Amino acid sequence: MIEIGRAKRAQQVYGFDDIAIVPTRRTRSPQDVRLNWNIDALTFEFPIVAAPMDSVMSPATAIAFGQMGGLGVLNLEGLWTRYEDPEPILDELAEISDAVAATERMQQVYAEPVKAELITERMNQIRDAGVPVAGALSPQRAQEFASVVERAGVDFFVIRGTTVSAEHVSANEEPLNLKEFIRKLDVPVIVGGCATYQAALHLMRTGAAGVLVGFGGAATGRTRHVLGVEVPMASAVADVAAARRDYMDESGGRYVHVIADGALGRSGDIAKAIACGADACMVSTPLARAEEAPGRGWHWGPEAWHGTLPRGERVRMGRVGSLEEIVLGPSHTPDGTMNLVGALRKAMGTTGYTEVKEFQRVEIVVHA
Amino acid sequence: MIEIGRAKRAQQVYGFDDIAIVPTRRTRSPQDVRLNWNIDALTFEFPIVAAPMDSVMSPATAIAFGQMGGLGVLNLEGLWTRYEDPEPILDELAEISDAVAATERMQQVYAEPVKAELITERMNQIRDAGVPVAGALSPQRAQEFASVVERAGVDFFVIRGTTVSAEHVSANEEPLNLKEFIRKLDVPVIVGGCATYQAALHLMRTGAAGVLVGFGGAATGRTRHVLGVEVPMASAVADVAAARRDYMDESGGRYVHVIADGALGRSGDIAKAIACGADACMVSTPLARAEEAPGRGWHWGPEAWHGTLPRGERVRMGRVGSLEEIVLGPSHTPDGTMNLVGALRKAMGTTGYTEVKEFQRVEIVVHA
Amino acid sequence: MIEIGRAKRAQQVYGFDDIAIVPTRRTRSPQDVRLNWNIDALTFEFPIVAAPMDSVMSPATAIAFGQMGGLGVLNLEGLWTRYEDPEPILDELAEISDAVAATERMQQVYAEPVKAELITERMNQIRDAGVPVAGALSPQRAQEFASVVERAGVDFFVIRGTTVSAEHVSANEEPLNLKEFIRKLDVPVIVGGCATYQAALHLMRTGAAGVLVGFGGAATGRTRHVLGVEVPMASAVADVAAARRDYMDESGGRYVHVIADGALGRSGDIAKAIACGADACMVSTPLARAEEAPGRGWHWGPEAWHGTLPRGERVRMGRVGSLEEIVLGPSHTPDGTMNLVGALRKAMGTTGYTEVKEFQRVEIVVHA
Amino acid sequence: MIEIGRAKRAQQVYGFDDIAIVPTRRTRSPQDVRLNWNIDALTFEFPIVAAPMDSVMSPATAIAFGQMGGLGVLNLEGLWTRYEDPEPILDELAEISDAVAATERMQQVYAEPVKAELITERMNQIRDAGVPVAGALSPQRAQEFASVVERAGVDFFVIRGTTVSAEHVSANEEPLNLKEFIRKLDVPVIVGGCATYQAALHLMRTGAAGVLVGFGGAATGRTRHVLGVEVPMASAVADVAAARRDYMDESGGRYVHVIADGALGRSGDIAKAIACGADACMVSTPLARAEEAPGRGWHWGPEAWHGTLPRGERVRMGRVGSLEEIVLGPSHTPDGTMNLVGALRKAMGTTGYTEVKEFQRVEIVVHA
Repeated sequence: MIEIGRAKRAQQVYGFDDIAIVPTRRTRSPQDVRLNWNIDALTFEFPIVAAPMDSVMSPATAIAFGQMGGLGVLNLEGLWTRYEDPEPILDELAEISDAVAATERMQQVYAEPVKAELITERMNQIRDAGVPVAGALSPQRAQEFASVVERAGVDFFVIRGTTVSAEHVSANEEPLNLKEFIRKLDVPVIVGGCATYQAALHLMRTGAAGVLVGFGGAATGRTRHVLGVEVPMASAVADVAAARRDYMDESGGRYVHVIADGALGRSGDIAKAIACGADACMVSTPLARAEEAPGRGWHWGPEAWHGTLPRGERVRMGRVGSLEEIVLGPSHTPDGTMNLVGALRKAMGTTGYTEVKEFQRVEIVVHA
Repeated sequence: MIEIGRAKRAQQVYGFDDIAIVPTRRTRSPQDVRLNWNIDALTFEFPIVAAPMDSVMSPATAIAFGQMGGLGVLNLEGLWTRYEDPEPILDELAEISDAVAATERMQQVYAEPVKAELITERMNQIRDAGVPVAGALSPQRAQEFASVVERAGVDFFVIRGTTVSAEHVSANEEPLNLKEFIRKLDVPVIVGGCATYQAALHLMRTGAAGVLVGFGGAATGRTRHVLGVEVPMASAVADVAAARRDYMDESGGRYVHVIADGALGRSGDIAKAIACGADACMVSTPLARAEEAPGRGWHWGPEAWHGTLPRGERVRMGRVGSLEEIVLGPSHTPDGTMNLVGALRKAMGTTGYTEVKEFQRVEIVVHA
Repeated sequence: MIEIGRAKRAQQVYGFDDIAIVPTRRTRSPQDVRLNWNIDALTFEFPIVAAPMDSVMSPATAIAFGQMGGLGVLNLEGLWTRYEDPEPILDELAEISDAVAATERMQQVYAEPVKAELITERMNQIRDAGVPVAGALSPQRAQEFASVVERAGVDFFVIRGTTVSAEHVSANEEPLNLKEFIRKLDVPVIVGGCATYQAALHLMRTGAAGVLVGFGGAATGRTRHVLGVEVPMASAVADVAAARRDYMDESGGRYVHVIADGALGRSGDIAKAIACGADACMVSTPLARAEEAPGRGWHWGPEAWHGTLPRGERVRMGRVGSLEEIVLGPSHTPDGTMNLVGALRKAMGTTGYTEVKEFQRVEIVVHA
Repeated sequence: MIEIGRAKRAQQVYGFDDIAIVPTRRTRSPQDVRLNWNIDALTFEFPIVAAPMDSVMSPATAIAFGQMGGLGVLNLEGLWTRYEDPEPILDELAEISDAVAATERMQQVYAEPVKAELITERMNQIRDAGVPVAGALSPQRAQEFASVVERAGVDFFVIRGTTVSAEHVSANEEPLNLKEFIRKLDVPVIVGGCATYQAALHLMRTGAAGVLVGFGGAATGRTRHVLGVEVPMASAVADVAAARRDYMDESGGRYVHVIADGALGRSGDIAKAIACGADACMVSTPLARAEEAPGRGWHWGPEAWHGTLPRGERVRMGRVGSLEEIVLGPSHTPDGTMNLVGALRKAMGTTGYTEVKEFQRVEIVVHA
């Protein structure tokens, strides 16, 4: 603990940029590395989840991502559930280069109501393609659309907000009782973000299958500027990983997956997140650079369109290659933006690991 | 304590940029958050004071700020008390883009004497609008104009300088005896800046209703370059908050308000200041970006026009929206420059707090 | 050890930029400084090895570097062993300014197979010039070409990869058994990179004459972005120097040379590497700025042309002078890019040292 | 002590940019501040010495600086003692904008021999103006020109090099025996740079009246890039101040002045140097910005023209005002480049000090 001043103390925390992974005395062939991620009844080829952000996931890219072996999550409060055909809106947004104008236009287009029938339609479309189906709602609207989502037959129900707590208190509205909500649902729930041991432990006790660590969308998020709230990801993941271990003990063996969600802009960050204790990573920035990405070279999160207090900005990402090249390679750029899966495989092999679970124990260092 | 070299030790200190607020395991609805600030006999809607700087506060903006529910303070040694009509001068300054030329012109226009009748006139104008009245003087001239200000009927008397001490010693002039001065005055006094536990404790013992922490105008101030003097704000506020607690004990219960004054460029900084122990924040930079701001897109503090040793620079701020949008929202920018009150409300709710006083205890972290 | 979060701890580490050398109470004349480097049967005029990178070492520059008194190493999997005449390819690459296009073209031209007869021819050419001969292979292909290299009569066999371990495990291929491989070879082996005490100790036990510390090519390498793997050089060298000492004890007196390989962009970095415990430095960036450098003002390492996961970028270096001016002076630039040998001599003299081995004990400081 | 790696430890050190001065609970009027500096038989109006650099000190500016109340030192191995009329050369250098071309031309013009008769002439010129006379030689040539300088009747003899030790050892030349040299001289000697407790203590034992701390010319010096050698100034001054105290005890009361020489680019740095324990500051960068400065808006130190290993660069400074405005004010810039004396006076008053010697004890903080 550090003394800020006589009346205040604070913990020192670290982000992925502050740390690095250290090789051991062994190396392994990348081909020997096993990346499978088993959560609930499903197994994925690699521990990467595509984030429910409109600039990244459309029904089409969710399907493509699922076909490559990952889990794509559609935002159920995004343009695809507000508009029958959001393509013209995406085209229009891509044409606006001024930041303030873009924020104002997003505030307008996202004012269109979410439609239950579009939720059903989008979920069906993904399920019909034969890939795992997952949709995300904010905690504020989870209850309103839960039955629609459940009936649509999803594999995962994602509740994702900037900060989601197990215990939300409100004087004027009936808050979401997460524990009750999850117990009633027939599908596994992934919930977050959270950023501390205590918050994560309480989320785990609600019965969630996985918790999201972080506030999401670090490339686009400005929560630190607007609210002053921030928890650098390396420390957040390492804290929540401790909650997983303690909850497993407390619950008599229930393993809740820790999914890093934020500050994962390059392939090396994915390796670092696992090195800090994550079981999987929810990725957005690298996917926003795909030619197929609905953002058309731009990237933004749900915080960007808040009506009175936007806390995210739309960021120009450009396009580096196809979604497949970005996820599975081959890469033509040396900066960690392509071949995410190959890079994780190589990072593990080069430091002597073949199992993701073991790689959580790899040595890391802090670089001033 | 850190060893700088064998003959010198130093404390490690932190600014708002070095720290961040951490969510707890609870969240609260922003609507449930109570922001009222009670000081002396008055209650304000939110704990934000507009700084007595000519680029921010004119009689008109002080009135507007007061009508929104805050406390606007007019600089009684600024252009509005030196000139019957300072608008042409403000127009002229806004046209000068060269930094040195601007400093030289400011040195000239501020050489015009302060006029007692203009102090009276400006204070009357604000009081007539039905909002709380507050004017600021430097410690050097507080005695000279005190009776004028008092007769004008202010609600708060602000004594504000780069560094104000309870014990100013001078061989050639009769220094201001703060304790005596405050005792004689009929209105509550807010005094500062100070930056350390000891300095604050002595200021509290003078009978002040509030102390200003910091040197003010961080965006424009260059005290660190010119004098080498600086105390990063997070540490300064946390130190002075300890002085408030100890003085309350020593005085048998007198609560002196701690008002952060400096480095508050974004809404998140306001939340951080309170998290470090502030009761309220004196804000300038965000308000300088208002369309109505007298600075016309430029921002400067009293240090900028010193005749022989200017210690502040005039900074181009641009304009992001109306004063009301900046203070109360809605925001159209995701960078913490608009909707200051909404952002504070959200910061508190999202971390589980509904009372400003309790929010002083929220957990913070240091990020390298 | 630092706590990253409850489930993870990490060591704080330092790069050359974080440290500086401190003068003692003595100074010595640069002329009195002895820089000779004795390794195995050979003695070099100065402890600098030219790195096996195509942008730095051609047969011609390896000869020139050897004639100045250093050890030049040719990359035996580079353009000079893939093409009878690589000059047109080097010309072509120098014309490509777009980064992605350059990566893609490099992936193509390096797809051409390595030819055993060219290895022989290049090694002969260097030996015929009367200078020490050294060639580098990756651990993946060391076995394949070992006999060719040995028959060509080299003085040093260099096995160089991003991370080389004494114990590489593979399920599908027969990995290189370094210990056996080195025992059978008739020439001394220099092997690396490694970056930790444990990894280095195991490499020393294979019988190597020297170990390379670092991942090489820091100016061009992006391993930290792609894999998340990085060990800042000052800490890496200081750790491996401890392994040298402990291995010397364990082996009853075998002295394995520690050769820093990476982050040596300026002459001051060479001095810092030795100050951290290195016996010699493998240098690339400064030599890439030579008029004779085959890169024609560009610089890249073997990671730059990986077929599916490139981890290095081609960097524009420009040209500052002749190879001789860069190595032996005189310098016409005050930035540490010329007269590497003179600078090391001056650094040692100015801090009171005349022997490289003693200079490993010079005091250093960390600057925040 | 910090562990860099298992084989190396290091002290953490700090520069002026890392620290700041903290106000106390008192303030004093700047008019009450006494800045006199007494060294040997002389008293100066303020504790600022003008550095012997050709871009700063000509005979004319040395005289002007002396007339203001300070001590100007002429470089006796600079252009003024190599050329009867260096003005055309200064004109020519000012016209060269390319950095390498400037270094090469400086290497040429400084190859002209130093002439004893010009040393005499320049010293006479300054003495005739009625101000204190001081000339600087490098340790390499101190013996050669000592008698010329002494006969010219200087008040201070300055021996200044990048690193000067009390014990210089050389196999091929007769090194300067500082102790003997100083004993024989009839004038007080100021000698440096040094940067550590031990080096300073040994310099003090040679009988010097003052020691220079630092390597000089931080704005232009690149010793850290070329040699890897650097000691951040705050720590260096605080270490040498401890040597002063210990030497005073050891010598039975001899007070050797500690003169900070380097990294003093703004007025605030002068205050910080004294706060770390300096008695006076040797300043160059601020003076290089004077309209009268011989550098004509450029700034360079003796390291810039070394024949084979230049370790300093010529830097474009521009011009902010007259020498008098820079030293004594008034200032028209808020960045610490003007009114150095007024700023020091204000820094001391604002933190409650009236004596330079007491100001060495002012509280400082470290800001990450």
